[in-house]
Amino acid sequence: MTVADVRSGSRVPECDIRRTGLLPEHVTAFRRQGVLAVRGLLTQEELADVREAGKTLIDQAWSTRSMDDIVWTLESHLPDAAPTRIEYVVDKSRPIALLAGHPLLLRIMEQLVGPNLIPTWDSMVFKTTAGAPRLAWHRDAGLYDNAVGVTGMGRIIDAGIYLDPAPEDNCVWCIPESNYWSDERFTTTADRLNVSEWDTTGAVPAVMAPGDVLLHNILTLHGAPAVVGKQRRVIYFEYRPGEVEWQLGPHTEDYVGLKQQVLRSCVGMRAADPRFSDEEPFDYRPAESLQRWGDQPEIDTFRVPHEENWRW
Amino acid sequence: MTVADVRSGSRVPECDIRRTGLLPEHVTAFRRQGVLAVRGLLTQEELADVREAGKTLIDQAWSTRSMDDIVWTLESHLPDAAPTRIEYVVDKSRPIALLAGHPLLLRIMEQLVGPNLIPTWDSMVFKTTAGAPRLAWHRDAGLYDNAVGVTGMGRIIDAGIYLDPAPEDNCVWCIPESNYWSDERFTTTADRLNVSEWDTTGAVPAVMAPGDVLLHNILTLHGAPAVVGKQRRVIYFEYRPGEVEWQLGPHTEDYVGLKQQVLRSCVGMRAADPRFSDEEPFDYRPAESLQRWGDQPEIDTFRVPHEENWRW
Repeated sequence: MTVADVRSGSRVPECDIRRTGLLPEHVTAFRRQGVLAVRGLLTQEELADVREAGKTLIDQAWSTRSMDDIVWTLESHLPDAAPTRIEYVVDKSRPIALLAGHPLLLRIMEQLVGPNLIPTWDSMVFKTTAGAPRLAWHRDAGLYDNAVGVTGMGRIIDAGIYLDPAPEDNCVWCIPESNYWSDERFTTTADRLNVSEWDTTGAVPAVMAPGDVLLHNILTLHGAPAVVGKQRRVIYFEYRPGEVEWQLGPHTEDYVGLKQQVLRSCVGMRAADPRFSDEEPFDYRPAESLQRWGDQPEIDTFRVPHEENWRW
Repeated sequence: MTVADVRSGSRVPECDIRRTGLLPEHVTAFRRQGVLAVRGLLTQEELADVREAGKTLIDQAWSTRSMDDIVWTLESHLPDAAPTRIEYVVDKSRPIALLAGHPLLLRIMEQLVGPNLIPTWDSMVFKTTAGAPRLAWHRDAGLYDNAVGVTGMGRIIDAGIYLDPAPEDNCVWCIPESNYWSDERFTTTADRLNVSEWDTTGAVPAVMAPGDVLLHNILTLHGAPAVVGKQRRVIYFEYRPGEVEWQLGPHTEDYVGLKQQVLRSCVGMRAADPRFSDEEPFDYRPAESLQRWGDQPEIDTFRVPHEENWRW
């Protein structure tokens, strides 16, 4: 990849995080293009742990055929049904809770989302060898009025942590700078692209290796082709600024304190785990008026259901 | 100053820009506390030029007693009247236009405001030896509904470039983290502090040297004491994200393209000036959909009046 490629938007910008850290040019590239590939965030050891955790959750889905917190391609009792997504994975798996306390990931998020970042959605999205349908071109959920003015620069971010390779024929594609498009241009373009089964006009592939993290602004138009016979698992953590959630939703104001408790617990669990004793834990320090964790009853679960904390 | 002072908010955080550049901890400190002192931005040579330009503008105010673009303590024909502020200084002075193209300043702004930054207000605010009244505790103008959600993290920034020393008895004071306060807490606190002539409860002084730049989030509560017999001149440049102006105002959408022309012209003037031939010019590259400079007639002035481009 050349600098010219990245500048012209013909490639996803990338950051070799353990070699350079997050540089000003990475911040600007992400803010401009709405996407950034962070290479090599996970160590091999942590990657192995999280892969094992992912496998366990998917095996449980298959064996239980439960629809609680699990999205299936069809009703789960049907023979052709396959699971594609599991919600609240931080609550379901210790290695994923430890991952949610990853200091380098959280420092990147602090730079981009701001010091009052809170975790919102956490899930695993995956394609089993049973196959998965295309992901149509879309922006993510939970948008605001005047969304480009409010978050076009990328303050609401999905971090996709890859457990398996995502080559060009089985990866997310995105349209650089579409995070600044008007609603009308977004709708027209998505509708046009979604008419055919898989149209990548204007888009670039986000080719990822295991242990890489793809950051995308939730306003960036993205999609993925249908695929059969290939496994690909991604842990998604979404982050929002606490002050945006407080004043604009989509969750209630109380949600801020609840999810801050989750974040602090994950950071604490990781800091107490001997395997991470050589790391400097993330120092979570929102502005004083947004330190809301003491305002809420102490949580006994990391599962904070969206629908019980919804404002809209 | 110790790290503990800065972390506790008992001092203004600062960045020795030519030694370290803008580091992640500076970005986070600014986003959290709403203020950052950037030390030593101007060279001695550029500082001398801009000081001379400031002197010329103030001398002209005294000699003409004009009220066009000039704010006076009283009607300007009154014997005790003193000028305190001149608007549109980029249009009135070549050294100040060159300053508006400063690559290091603009790179800092790109990091904090985002790649679509546009310049909005430009003015010189000053205290002559004739004295100036206190600046009451306030947030700046042009706020949005749900302002903390929209810009609490500091995307709308006033950069105050100091031409004279601002010691503790003649400097701006600000309240760290008040950029995240609710309207009610802001109003209550400002009203309480403004009852007496000068109350600094909860505030910290922004002590500045000539050539330093004080960045403040427009939501950060700030004020300054009355002063007599001391000169202090500050060039203020405000910046906003183009996409915020486009979707939320306070100026019209057309204003974005007009002010982009001003910015590009200032950058070009500076790049063409032999005195700055050793600098790498600022590379202004907003997202394609926000490159609006070609949408407007070519400007023949850097004075783009707010009231002719007002949305609200």
